[in-house]
Amino acid sequence: MTAEEPTKAARGPGRPRDAGRDETILAATLTILLERGYNALTIEGVAAAAGVGRPTIYRRWPSKAALAVAALVHSSRLAIPARDRGSLREELVAIQRHQISLINSPESRRVTSGLVADLVHDPALAETYVSEYLVPRRAAVWEVLQRGVDRGELDPDADFAFVYDLLIGPLFMRAVVWGQTLSRDAAEQTADVVLAAFGTDAGRAPA
Amino acid sequence: MTAEEPTKAARGPGRPRDAGRDETILAATLTILLERGYNALTIEGVAAAAGVGRPTIYRRWPSKAALAVAALVHSSRLAIPARDRGSLREELVAIQRHQISLINSPESRRVTSGLVADLVHDPALAETYVSEYLVPRRAAVWEVLQRGVDRGELDPDADFAFVYDLLIGPLFMRAVVWGQTLSRDAAEQTADVVLAAFGTDAGRAPA
Repeated sequence: MTAEEPTKAARGPGRPRDAGRDETILAATLTILLERGYNALTIEGVAAAAGVGRPTIYRRWPSKAALAVAALVHSSRLAIPARDRGSLREELVAIQRHQISLINSPESRRVTSGLVADLVHDPALAETYVSEYLVPRRAAVWEVLQRGVDRGELDPDADFAFVYDLLIGPLFMRAVVWGQTLSRDAAEQTADVVLAAFGTDAGRAPA
Repeated sequence: MTAEEPTKAARGPGRPRDAGRDETILAATLTILLERGYNALTIEGVAAAAGVGRPTIYRRWPSKAALAVAALVHSSRLAIPARDRGSLREELVAIQRHQISLINSPESRRVTSGLVADLVHDPALAETYVSEYLVPRRAAVWEVLQRGVDRGELDPDADFAFVYDLLIGPLFMRAVVWGQTLSRDAAEQTADVVLAAFGTDAGRAPA
């Protein structure tokens, strides 16, 4: 689970434009993923959109699924809104609204439905998806929780991993298992459960 | 989403042994599923174990995935422990312990890993799995929640669907997304979150 990416210099001479080219390829991949979905993604289509040959892509990513995961990892558009708003509840609600609109968006549904099926058959890639996409997203939420502890709004003994799963698990159940669209007030609903269970009196007061 | 199963009489004359034969086939399927896993399940193997021809199975279930779902639906071994224990917290902890040992069991991992991949490609069957397996399990938990309301332990305005997702979502995240074994105290942890958020003072007192 090494996250170490070779630096441009470490790649050696003769391939000075790799980073910029990778960027172009990943941007093209993300565009196709969001506009047309995972099932419509092909290495050929990405090569055409990015203006490179297919071998250039295959040298770097061994499969369409690997390329899709890399594009998601790379995408800052999907980042967690973790900035300081002065109140844990407000920050949790903002994060949950972001997660809800991401889960609800037709783009996101198009991306995940086919990708999940491929990840089931490729445990190593699934691990990359978890370690390089989901873990950093969770880390951003943990920063928000830590600020809540520092402000005296959250119990310092709260288990951050469990709190994260409390925030996301119910959204996941409703969207994936029950196949329902998430309502916007699920943001407050889940944030308030966390505060009821682990908030101090200061944390539970509406901001 | 009708759950109505034709009674033996309603099936008409000439097929009087169907129910018993179905039972044998489903029992053989469940045994193979639990002992050897979904990937090792074949219609041929079930036919041999149940002492019937393959066409007999195919007439009733069009695919291996459909047969597996039917065996799970039929299985009372997997039923939710919903009996009255006099205390909502005790009942929720019992249910959560049951869910945790089910999720942790190697048998269950063997069953679900391959099945989920097939369900992703078969939305109609996935709907059957939800409506005939997951919905009845959720209904059993709702009965327990309703008893909690009747006893004055749970807020009568609590959204039962959300409470269910709060109980299961975090277990699901930890087991499926993070790939971790669930600890036994996740039962108390999740039950106590529900009581912190929706319990009355009577409900939150340890039994």
